[in-house]
Amino acid sequence: MTFDAMWADLEPVGRDSRSGGYRRFAWTATDATLREWFTGAVQARGLEVTTDRAGNLWAWAGDPDADGPGLVVGSHLDSVPDGGAFDGPLGVVSALAALDALRARGWSPRRPLGIAVFGDEEGARFGVACAGSRILTGVLDADRARALRDADGTTMAEAMAAAGHDPGRVGRDEATLRRVGAFVELHVEQGRALAGGSAAVGVARAIWPHGRWRLDLRGRADHAGTTLLADRDDPMLRLADAVRTARSAAHQHAILATVGKVAVEPNGVNAIPSAVTAWLDARGPGEPAVRSVVAAVGAAAGVDPVEESFTPPTAFDAGLRDRLATLLAGAPVLATGAGHDAGILAAAGIPTAMLFVRNPTGVSHSPHEHAEPADCHAGVAALARVLEELA
Amino acid sequence: MTFDAMWADLEPVGRDSRSGGYRRFAWTATDATLREWFTGAVQARGLEVTTDRAGNLWAWAGDPDADGPGLVVGSHLDSVPDGGAFDGPLGVVSALAALDALRARGWSPRRPLGIAVFGDEEGARFGVACAGSRILTGVLDADRARALRDADGTTMAEAMAAAGHDPGRVGRDEATLRRVGAFVELHVEQGRALAGGSAAVGVARAIWPHGRWRLDLRGRADHAGTTLLADRDDPMLRLADAVRTARSAAHQHAILATVGKVAVEPNGVNAIPSAVTAWLDARGPGEPAVRSVVAAVGAAAGVDPVEESFTPPTAFDAGLRDRLATLLAGAPVLATGAGHDAGILAAAGIPTAMLFVRNPTGVSHSPHEHAEPADCHAGVAALARVLEELA
Repeated sequence: MTFDAMWADLEPVGRDSRSGGYRRFAWTATDATLREWFTGAVQARGLEVTTDRAGNLWAWAGDPDADGPGLVVGSHLDSVPDGGAFDGPLGVVSALAALDALRARGWSPRRPLGIAVFGDEEGARFGVACAGSRILTGVLDADRARALRDADGTTMAEAMAAAGHDPGRVGRDEATLRRVGAFVELHVEQGRALAGGSAAVGVARAIWPHGRWRLDLRGRADHAGTTLLADRDDPMLRLADAVRTARSAAHQHAILATVGKVAVEPNGVNAIPSAVTAWLDARGPGEPAVRSVVAAVGAAAGVDPVEESFTPPTAFDAGLRDRLATLLAGAPVLATGAGHDAGILAAAGIPTAMLFVRNPTGVSHSPHEHAEPADCHAGVAALARVLEELA
Repeated sequence: MTFDAMWADLEPVGRDSRSGGYRRFAWTATDATLREWFTGAVQARGLEVTTDRAGNLWAWAGDPDADGPGLVVGSHLDSVPDGGAFDGPLGVVSALAALDALRARGWSPRRPLGIAVFGDEEGARFGVACAGSRILTGVLDADRARALRDADGTTMAEAMAAAGHDPGRVGRDEATLRRVGAFVELHVEQGRALAGGSAAVGVARAIWPHGRWRLDLRGRADHAGTTLLADRDDPMLRLADAVRTARSAAHQHAILATVGKVAVEPNGVNAIPSAVTAWLDARGPGEPAVRSVVAAVGAAAGVDPVEESFTPPTAFDAGLRDRLATLLAGAPVLATGAGHDAGILAAAGIPTAMLFVRNPTGVSHSPHEHAEPADCHAGVAALARVLEELA
């Protein structure tokens, strides 16, 4: 199956007909379909899939326990709510297509070669991004992971069990980590750094420090039609201040800050809310600036922001990065504000690199996310060259 | 069954164990339980229940077609999300208790006496308050009513059909309206006008003009971690401006304005929203001030507010009001910002009055909504005197 055929095959899975975006959330029926799709794809290539303790999928050509550690490529298949087709799947499909291209030329790897699909990268359902790689590396504690709840109150443990993954297995997976000598993740670019230039593919330098904080704004439920303004304790006003301050402080400190998720209780037209919960996403080149913005937003909203996750700055392996940049002559080297499983593995001490494929508009996490077919094919060719060189 | 016994009987129906508030929404299983409860209560008193074209319930002592029109008392049994126990049910239970009190004294009405339970007064599920009385009087068009959708996309027609009410019957109900010579609704006060004084019961003068408007704030979905601030079109910022302007303009014009309900798309922590929908509730003594505030909020948010409903000022029948105030010597006469079915019937030309029962905190639409038992009993006694006088 060619890249284009695999792409077309995946296209309808989890697509929302109204928005045109994807709703591929962890441990759902759609997630199971995506896992089956990957399992079928690697079986058709004569490989077997194993599932690690975190629920990530691994397919190995060669024996990484006997002849390893090996080289791993891959990405994830899940999405944000109404996300695009490329964020994640491009790296998985490109890994399969790169293997096919090399095999067609009669190439076989000198060291074990793995293809990985990380679970729950976006954290759309349980609120923790890169949950699969965080559990794998032990950064996310097993008990905390199992107790995470989705919007319906279902725990991650319950969702895993319903999907056939034993939540009792969850935890740092030494055996799996030992097999990974290096990891390369290809990903659609989520900005416009490549859009203006001639290169279809870039190499990652570093991931900005980034995190998400929860603002628990409490008020007092009351009738909107009868309660005097002076008698109100309306948390929606504090939300407004938090949103405005996030923007102004981010501008002042030259970072990015966003309030993208809000939950209102009881959320009735004629009811003053009893509570508003808002989530703040903040990231930028330097951690002090990020911390300053989070503090400013908390002060404006009158609460201490609850840190749900924070990832310090991640520099990718300098040797690997330079080798890839030399190999892919002319590929620009870029920093990124987006978190990735590659960043989690890099922080865990695994030599890691990323390739970015050009995104003409920079739009991501949206149905409008796009990469041109020719650029996707260039990505596959670049990944094939990297495999040839490193494996 | 005494007032207290009926009250205890109703207490658990539709109560949310987490919030302690009520979730009694139109055409749900909980709504069916409430309807059965009322049907059982009137049957125990030897009366039958009929359902009008809008789905409101009517129990008549005497024949309003032969000897009418009659006097009707009653209120509603549905609630806002996490609402209190009193808003609505107090009027229904008091009507039954007042009838019992009069019968216990051997009294029988000289004219037909009806007890009404209006459906979907709060509009919590389909977004239109007083839907039952608005359909009954034709103010809410039958086709528009049937097409209203709840948050899950279910139409009111589908919800009615599922609950056994033929949506094809929906429409202005002349036969039912002809039977109603006058309507008196007893209701918990939703402010603190009575709280400071010696009277447990007040009489309504008028209902402020009030309405709800929808703000459709469109933006462009994008990745929160990679999209430059300058490249964003983030509707959450316009929500913040709308919320702040609603408060400041309401203060300036001396009315009430509230943003109590918000829906964010796609509502992901690391996704700049593609759309935010917010609902504005505005009301006050004069319509021009209300209109000014709505316009100011629209201007701040950069949209034309969509008027989902608007009710002009409603003065209750002056003769009836003065008769009640005289009868209940010392009962204060109050205006209110809350809409009621009584207001819809008054606007349709039916002589209508309201009694308010003291609320010690003024809190309403909240689990903390309260009235003291002694004040509830005073409300029953007042309603019984009104029945004696008018029927």
